[in-house]
Amino acid sequence: MSEATHWVLTFVCADKPGIVHAVSGAIVAANGNITESQQFSSDDTGTFFMRLQVETSASREEFELALQPVTSHYNMEWRLDVVGRPLRTLVLATKAAHCLNDILFRQRAGQLPVEIPLVLSNHDELSSLAGFYGIPFESMPVTTPEQKAAFEKRLLEVVEENDVELIVLARYMQVLSPELCKKLEGKIINIHHSFLPGFKGANPYKQAHSRGVKLIGATAHFVTSDLDEGPIIEQNVVRVDHSRSPEELVAIGQDEESRTLTQAVKWFAEDRILRDGQRTIIFK
Amino acid sequence: MSEATHWVLTFVCADKPGIVHAVSGAIVAANGNITESQQFSSDDTGTFFMRLQVETSASREEFELALQPVTSHYNMEWRLDVVGRPLRTLVLATKAAHCLNDILFRQRAGQLPVEIPLVLSNHDELSSLAGFYGIPFESMPVTTPEQKAAFEKRLLEVVEENDVELIVLARYMQVLSPELCKKLEGKIINIHHSFLPGFKGANPYKQAHSRGVKLIGATAHFVTSDLDEGPIIEQNVVRVDHSRSPEELVAIGQDEESRTLTQAVKWFAEDRILRDGQRTIIFK
Amino acid sequence: MSEATHWVLTFVCADKPGIVHAVSGAIVAANGNITESQQFSSDDTGTFFMRLQVETSASREEFELALQPVTSHYNMEWRLDVVGRPLRTLVLATKAAHCLNDILFRQRAGQLPVEIPLVLSNHDELSSLAGFYGIPFESMPVTTPEQKAAFEKRLLEVVEENDVELIVLARYMQVLSPELCKKLEGKIINIHHSFLPGFKGANPYKQAHSRGVKLIGATAHFVTSDLDEGPIIEQNVVRVDHSRSPEELVAIGQDEESRTLTQAVKWFAEDRILRDGQRTIIFK
Amino acid sequence: MSEATHWVLTFVCADKPGIVHAVSGAIVAANGNITESQQFSSDDTGTFFMRLQVETSASREEFELALQPVTSHYNMEWRLDVVGRPLRTLVLATKAAHCLNDILFRQRAGQLPVEIPLVLSNHDELSSLAGFYGIPFESMPVTTPEQKAAFEKRLLEVVEENDVELIVLARYMQVLSPELCKKLEGKIINIHHSFLPGFKGANPYKQAHSRGVKLIGATAHFVTSDLDEGPIIEQNVVRVDHSRSPEELVAIGQDEESRTLTQAVKWFAEDRILRDGQRTIIFK
Repeated sequence: MSEATHWVLTFVCADKPGIVHAVSGAIVAANGNITESQQFSSDDTGTFFMRLQVETSASREEFELALQPVTSHYNMEWRLDVVGRPLRTLVLATKAAHCLNDILFRQRAGQLPVEIPLVLSNHDELSSLAGFYGIPFESMPVTTPEQKAAFEKRLLEVVEENDVELIVLARYMQVLSPELCKKLEGKIINIHHSFLPGFKGANPYKQAHSRGVKLIGATAHFVTSDLDEGPIIEQNVVRVDHSRSPEELVAIGQDEESRTLTQAVKWFAEDRILRDGQRTIIFK
Repeated sequence: MSEATHWVLTFVCADKPGIVHAVSGAIVAANGNITESQQFSSDDTGTFFMRLQVETSASREEFELALQPVTSHYNMEWRLDVVGRPLRTLVLATKAAHCLNDILFRQRAGQLPVEIPLVLSNHDELSSLAGFYGIPFESMPVTTPEQKAAFEKRLLEVVEENDVELIVLARYMQVLSPELCKKLEGKIINIHHSFLPGFKGANPYKQAHSRGVKLIGATAHFVTSDLDEGPIIEQNVVRVDHSRSPEELVAIGQDEESRTLTQAVKWFAEDRILRDGQRTIIFK
Repeated sequence: MSEATHWVLTFVCADKPGIVHAVSGAIVAANGNITESQQFSSDDTGTFFMRLQVETSASREEFELALQPVTSHYNMEWRLDVVGRPLRTLVLATKAAHCLNDILFRQRAGQLPVEIPLVLSNHDELSSLAGFYGIPFESMPVTTPEQKAAFEKRLLEVVEENDVELIVLARYMQVLSPELCKKLEGKIINIHHSFLPGFKGANPYKQAHSRGVKLIGATAHFVTSDLDEGPIIEQNVVRVDHSRSPEELVAIGQDEESRTLTQAVKWFAEDRILRDGQRTIIFK
Repeated sequence: MSEATHWVLTFVCADKPGIVHAVSGAIVAANGNITESQQFSSDDTGTFFMRLQVETSASREEFELALQPVTSHYNMEWRLDVVGRPLRTLVLATKAAHCLNDILFRQRAGQLPVEIPLVLSNHDELSSLAGFYGIPFESMPVTTPEQKAAFEKRLLEVVEENDVELIVLARYMQVLSPELCKKLEGKIINIHHSFLPGFKGANPYKQAHSRGVKLIGATAHFVTSDLDEGPIIEQNVVRVDHSRSPEELVAIGQDEESRTLTQAVKWFAEDRILRDGQRTIIFK
């Protein structure tokens, strides 16, 4: 037996009586101590969701052996990971620095458990920012369909070579192909401005200004083939008034984008986000 | 000369240099003392907006005489009223009590400067609530087109007889006719639930639940012929999570509706809302 | 066996491995289905807290029998109640209506699971409000020490006769005696204005105004012998600016007081508040 | 005459009738166009406050000449500056990077109109962060009274040599001497964690944790000889719950500190903060 390790465990399965008893029995069998536990039963889909943090001196093999009868009996989707292990995260960006800066600053400050093998961009502007934080940076133009295909090919290579677990669109201003979105579904997080009411078409901040909206904000969501319409992870808004110019609305919106995206990435890296059909279960 | 009166003054006109000097000169001429002042120049429409509170012992006639050269030179829309005068307000409701209760409670508590000649409803349920606060109540069914026409005829009578200045749709669940909306444009305030993203069609709380939205709220707006699309007055949101049932979302949303609508009515009654095309200028 | 009942269960005990497994085993033994579950282990005090909602067709006796070995083995404090059962709640008030109105309105609207045998006040002003909602009302002056003793004697009688489970100080402006506070500790909830920084002494809103605070709010807390210093249940704040008069700060503060107190009462009535030394664990 | 310049003007004087008329007359005399205007009369101190933005092609000399009769007649404190001119700002820091990073990132992003001649610290840790943004950095130990005197001497030299207009304590963890605070009063902004209730003594986050506070936040304030007690500029709070460790409270609190301090600096640099005795008037 080794020293005690702090594990995070997630389970998803069809809801039925006895699951908690079975899971907690497996934890007892692995000499585990539950330090954090959350669960939720979805009336919408009849699905049971659970997230545990467990301390045990059992090895991964021993722990998995103890869990095996339960996960197989209830036909669970499950994950076992070490708490705080940095998630391998590829960041895509364009020219706007605010989201990338927030992610890199917090990663260095020890507040965001990610490791970033690469920042991949369709422009050069953010090279020095990545450099300051010691993160490799590549840029490839994405103007023609051929360039876009090459960009996505490179993206998939990076994912493959680095065993990337999460792709963050940190104000990456290009639409990814439906094929790519499908292939990486559930692994791509995007950030999107948000208004009440919503606005379609170009220059939404200008539209928001001209309708005199009183709240502007941001939504972090999973990317599905249907851009901006995937399951919502987190949303924030901030109050504005008539005196704000469209440019000021953009600046205010960027702050919300940064903190909302970073929050979503943090929860993902901590295995706190589970999917229930078109919605997310967040175990904060 | 009489005792000092506390006046509220609003001006709207095409923006040009010298307006503030001209207005403040008229105030000086009326021996007025400015106690509150706000102004805004809209780059969108080239319009100048101003709201003043002024103490003076001048009579209304004297004050208007002092203002006349300025308002006519700048071709102003303007209003002169006494601060705190209760606004004659007609409230329309259906069955839900939350918005009506909030308005009546605050009116009695002296926090909302309105007087309410009538609550007009298409159902009986809220009769005793109005009665407790000593407010007349009438109900008329609105099921057939003929009944709707009769209801709107009665509404216009009440407006006429009581010189009504504001109509509040306190969760009145019927659509007003375009003709009525047009006739009373700028005088009808509605409250509407709000989500990010917006949802079309029936049972929006259920849709919001199934998309897992993280914020729900309410928007108070002027009613134009295009329902729910008039200029926004105020918006609030509150955070929710996956564990909330559609029913709980409704209850949470109702709180936001109450406070948002009451806030909008208060600002209107205090002459703090001015219109700039499709948006509102709010001088809080 | 009867129809299925929806139960709420809370447990508090010294933290050790195996509790969840033991509890969930007892639920299985009672043919129960866990519909909601929250737990927390306090590093501060080494205490384990759990709240469950369970559906089962077992009777109370059968359910208690199934739980007995677990609660006795772990030496638990525990409660078993029916979800939604109205809590017997005594409300104390003085002259300010805002908190009482909010509680009574929501109770009638079905949003607050309490039944109120009496509103007890040291003034008459709120009699008609209680009357409108059909709640008995008594007032007794509390000016002299003898009157205060008589008031508290009557309070204890009401508690006794009605088996009162919660006492809500809805802006009751008298200090309760230390003996009473001690006797009813953990059963009295008070609401208190809150500022950053805090202010001692008379007229805190005036002090807050003169220091130019930018946030004002309210704190709901348990009453201990040391008034205003008991465990915090809920806090809210709202933004204000320099233009607000002390009177406006009071009005704004009252809104926060109402919603904060009602929230605290709701959580208490739903068995969502557990005590961990000087702090509360809230299972929302 | 030169091209049109965008000016910001602030006035403070004893309140009396006619000020606005006199000021606006001077603007007219300087061919100015008022683009933004805010004013406030303090009932507490009988003081009138005004902030204007004015476009005019008049030179500074011509503009001052037009203003001179008014400012002298009303015995005004006043300032005339160019909108957007970067404020010469000295930043003091210790080891914590969050506030400094936010200021430097926003300064480079064009969202914070400051120029920073130096970051002065009592430790070396933040040297590379300053370096990345191209800002000179110096550190001097402050352990002994002699070192502290030397540090403050250097600080005053930097203020002198660079004509520094604002000193920002970006989590500078040393107390400045009363003499220095007095000498630079109204020019030093500090950031301070804030809780409800407030806590005295060491490790406030730990105290806040053990009392189970539900809101934590930050207060930006002017430094007076009495540290942490100067006029409040801005406050923010964020909701927390019982599950947060003291370390997590610190991380959450740091985010509030960053955004609150940066906001205060921005308002100061834009001449939006005026002093009314112990409070601030903020013309947002």
